Amino acid sequence: MENNESKLWRFNKKYEKGDGKMSEDNKRAMTVREALGMLKGNVNPEDKRPLIPMGHGDPSPFHCFRTAPAAEDAVVAALRSATFNGYSVTHGLPSARKAVAEYISKDLPYKLSPQDVYLTVGCKQAIQAAITALSLPDSNILMPRPTFAMYDAVAAFTGLELRHYDLQPETGWEVDLNSVEALVDNNTVAIVIINPGNPCGSVYTYQHLQKVAETARKLGLLVIADEVYEHITFGSKPFVRMAVFASIVPVLTLGSLSKRWIVPGWRLGWLVTTDPNHILQKSQYVERVKAFFNINADPPTFIQAAVPQIIEKTEEEFFSKCITVLRQDAELIVEKLKEIPSITCPNEPEGSMFVMVKLNLSMLDGIQDDADFCMKLAKQESMIILPGSTVGMKNWLRLTFALEPSVLEQGLERLKCFCQRNAKVE
Amino acid sequence: MENNESKLWRFNKKYEKGDGKMSEDNKRAMTVREALGMLKGNVNPEDKRPLIPMGHGDPSPFHCFRTAPAAEDAVVAALRSATFNGYSVTHGLPSARKAVAEYISKDLPYKLSPQDVYLTVGCKQAIQAAITALSLPDSNILMPRPTFAMYDAVAAFTGLELRHYDLQPETGWEVDLNSVEALVDNNTVAIVIINPGNPCGSVYTYQHLQKVAETARKLGLLVIADEVYEHITFGSKPFVRMAVFASIVPVLTLGSLSKRWIVPGWRLGWLVTTDPNHILQKSQYVERVKAFFNINADPPTFIQAAVPQIIEKTEEEFFSKCITVLRQDAELIVEKLKEIPSITCPNEPEGSMFVMVKLNLSMLDGIQDDADFCMKLAKQESMIILPGSTVGMKNWLRLTFALEPSVLEQGLERLKCFCQRNAKVE
Repeated sequence: MENNESKLWRFNKKYEKGDGKMSEDNKRAMTVREALGMLKGNVNPEDKRPLIPMGHGDPSPFHCFRTAPAAEDAVVAALRSATFNGYSVTHGLPSARKAVAEYISKDLPYKLSPQDVYLTVGCKQAIQAAITALSLPDSNILMPRPTFAMYDAVAAFTGLELRHYDLQPETGWEVDLNSVEALVDNNTVAIVIINPGNPCGSVYTYQHLQKVAETARKLGLLVIADEVYEHITFGSKPFVRMAVFASIVPVLTLGSLSKRWIVPGWRLGWLVTTDPNHILQKSQYVERVKAFFNINADPPTFIQAAVPQIIEKTEEEFFSKCITVLRQDAELIVEKLKEIPSITCPNEPEGSMFVMVKLNLSMLDGIQDDADFCMKLAKQESMIILPGSTVGMKNWLRLTFALEPSVLEQGLERLKCFCQRNAKVE
Repeated sequence: MENNESKLWRFNKKYEKGDGKMSEDNKRAMTVREALGMLKGNVNPEDKRPLIPMGHGDPSPFHCFRTAPAAEDAVVAALRSATFNGYSVTHGLPSARKAVAEYISKDLPYKLSPQDVYLTVGCKQAIQAAITALSLPDSNILMPRPTFAMYDAVAAFTGLELRHYDLQPETGWEVDLNSVEALVDNNTVAIVIINPGNPCGSVYTYQHLQKVAETARKLGLLVIADEVYEHITFGSKPFVRMAVFASIVPVLTLGSLSKRWIVPGWRLGWLVTTDPNHILQKSQYVERVKAFFNINADPPTFIQAAVPQIIEKTEEEFFSKCITVLRQDAELIVEKLKEIPSITCPNEPEGSMFVMVKLNLSMLDGIQDDADFCMKLAKQESMIILPGSTVGMKNWLRLTFALEPSVLEQGLERLKCFCQRNAKVE
C-alpha cells in the first residue's frame, strides 16, 4: 500500500484537520499515571536494586498491607455462588447501595437512603460522573492547588474549565478562602475539597470544613468532597465528613474501597449525594448524573454483591493495623527528611498516604527543576517520586510513605544519597 | 428552607437555562436497559408466576448456562494470590493483552500483538471508546437498523451523528450496501457491523463481509466490528471475523468474555485494532483511543489477571454444550412462533441470542403498537420482550431465546395465550 493512499480514508482527513473537540485531549493535564510511566522508563535497567515506588498510593503489594481476609472471602463467596455472573442493575445492586448508605451514615447526622448511592468503577469513575454532569458551556469549577491531576484530565476532556485555589502550607494546607472568593464568577458551579488530603497529607478540622461549607453556600457552589482516603488519619485530628454540613450546602461524596481496604485494583467506588434540602434534585443535577451512568459501565456484579459482607465483616483490627503502620511510616519520613538539607517538609502528614515537600534547588548542582530531579533520581537510584509540577506545585515533590517500613527506609536512604551526591559544593 | 432559595445556587441557575451540552442527554436514545426497566415496572405484582425474561441477552441465571468451572477457578486463583489487588496498568495487564491477541489471531491470517489490544470494562466501554474517539464536530457514522441502542445513546452523549443503514430481512438481514452508499457524505467516518447479529440472529458469510469491507474501503470508512457474540453460531454458517479483511480496510474489533463465557457481570471486554497497513496509526485514531483510556477506569486487575487461564483452560465441551442448548432454543422458538398468526419470523436465527419478529397489528384487538404490545404482555403474562422501536423497527419485537429450554417453552406458551386473548374477532 502506498503512503499517500492514507488520504483515501475519510476518518483520516478529519483528524488531520485537528479542529475537533477531541483535540482538547492534547491540552489535557498529564495524569499521575502518565508521569509515573515516564519516570519508570527512565530507570536504569542495569541497576539490580529493587525499584522503590514512592510515586503513587498503592501499598497493596506489601505484605503488611494485605487486605482483610473477610473482604477477600466475601468476593470469593459472591463469585462461587454463581448468582452474580449476570448484568447488574444501573447505579448498582440494591443490597450494595444500602450497605454503602449505612456505612457513610455512621459518620453523619443524616440517614442516607440507598437511592443516594451510585456505585462506580473505582473513585475514578465517580470523579468522571461528577465532573461530566457539571460540564455545561462556559462553566468552571474550583480545584485545590496542589491538585489531583485526574480532575484536570477529565475536565479537559469534557471541556469544563478548572480554576485552582491555593492550599496554604503555613496553616496545615487549609483552604485559602480568600483565594476561593476571588476566583468565583457567575459561571462557577462547584468546589472540590480533598480530605484527607492527597497530595498534602492534611486532615481538616470540623471548624475548617464548616467554614468551607459556609463559603460555598454564600457563593452558591456545590461541594464535591473527595474522601477516597476516608478514615485514613493518624495524627491528632479525627476524620470529619464534609457531608456533616449538608444542611448548609449540598455535598457529593466520592469514595471507594480502594484505599481503606487497600484494594485499588478491585475498582469499587461510589458517588453519594447528601442533600437534606433537596437542592440537587431540584437542579436536575441528579438527573445528569443518572444520564452519565446510563451509558457508562457498572462495576462487576459479584464485587458489588460482596460489598455488604466486606463492610460488615472486616474487623476493626485490620484498619487499626494499617493505621499503625502508616503512622510509623509518616514519623519515619519526617525524621529522615530532616537529614536532607535541600528538602523541606512544611507539614507533617496526618492522613492519606502522601506528603508534599519543597525542593531547595539552590543547594543542588545541575538540577533544573522538580521534573529533572525526579528523572535523575529514577535513573540514579531506581526510585520513583512524583514531581510537584504534576500536581500544580513546581519545584515541590509529592512522596508517598505507604510502603512496608523497611522499604521506605531504604528509599529515604537512597533519596539522601542522591541529594548528597548532587549537592552544590559551597 | 424556602422554595425560592434554590435560586441562590449557581449550579442550579445554569441547569435551568437548559442550554448546556449535557442537555443533549435528554435527546439520547432510550437504552435497552431503560426500556426493560419500564416494562418490569408494568408487571402485575399480583401475578405469582415467575417472570420470564426474554428482553435481554443474559442467560447466566440458568443452570444450563453456568460459566465454565475453569473460568471461575481462574478468577478465584487470581484473587487469592493477593498479587492483583493493586492498580492495573493503562490498557490492561500485558499477560491479558497477549492472551486476547493470541485468542483473536487464531481466527485471522494476521498475528496480532498485545499492543493491538485494549482491555475494557465490558464491551460497553469498548463501544464508548470507539465512538468517543470518532466524535469530531459534524462527523457521522453508519449504524445498522435494527440497531443496538447503546451506540445511539453513546453517540448522543458525545454529539456524534448516527445514520442508519438498513438490514434486509429478505436476504437473511444482510447489509443493504446501496443504502450504505446513499448515506455517506464527506463527514462520514466509520461503519458499525454487528456479527453475529444482535438483534437479528444473523450470521454473515465470508463473501458478504468481504463486500462490506470493499464498500468501506471505497468510501474511506473505518469498520467497527461488534463481535460480542463471536463464535455463538448454530446454523450452517461459521463465524468469520471482520478483521480477516483488514488488509482491505482497517478494523476495530469489539468483544468481551460476557456472551461466550456467559459472564456479562464480570465486565471484561476488549477493543482490538487490526491494521496491517498502519492506517489507524497514521490517522492518530489510536492516539485518540489511548486518550480515552487515560481518563477512564480499567477493569479490575484480578479479573484481567485471570484472562490467560480463562482462555487457555476453558474446555471445548463447555462451548459446545452452550451452543447445543442455544440451537435447541432457536429451533423451539421458530416452531412455536409458527403457532401464533399475528407474529411472523422472517428468518430463523443462526447466531447470537436474539431473533427479530414482525407484529401483524391488524390481527390484534386494541393493541396500538409494539410498545403497547410489550407493556400489556408484561402486565398480563409477567413476561418481558423488547419492543422493536427500541432497536429502530417499529411494530417488530426483539426476543431472546437464550433461556433454559423449559422456561423458554413456558414463555412462548404465554406469548401464544396473550396473542389469542387479544386476537381480533373476524
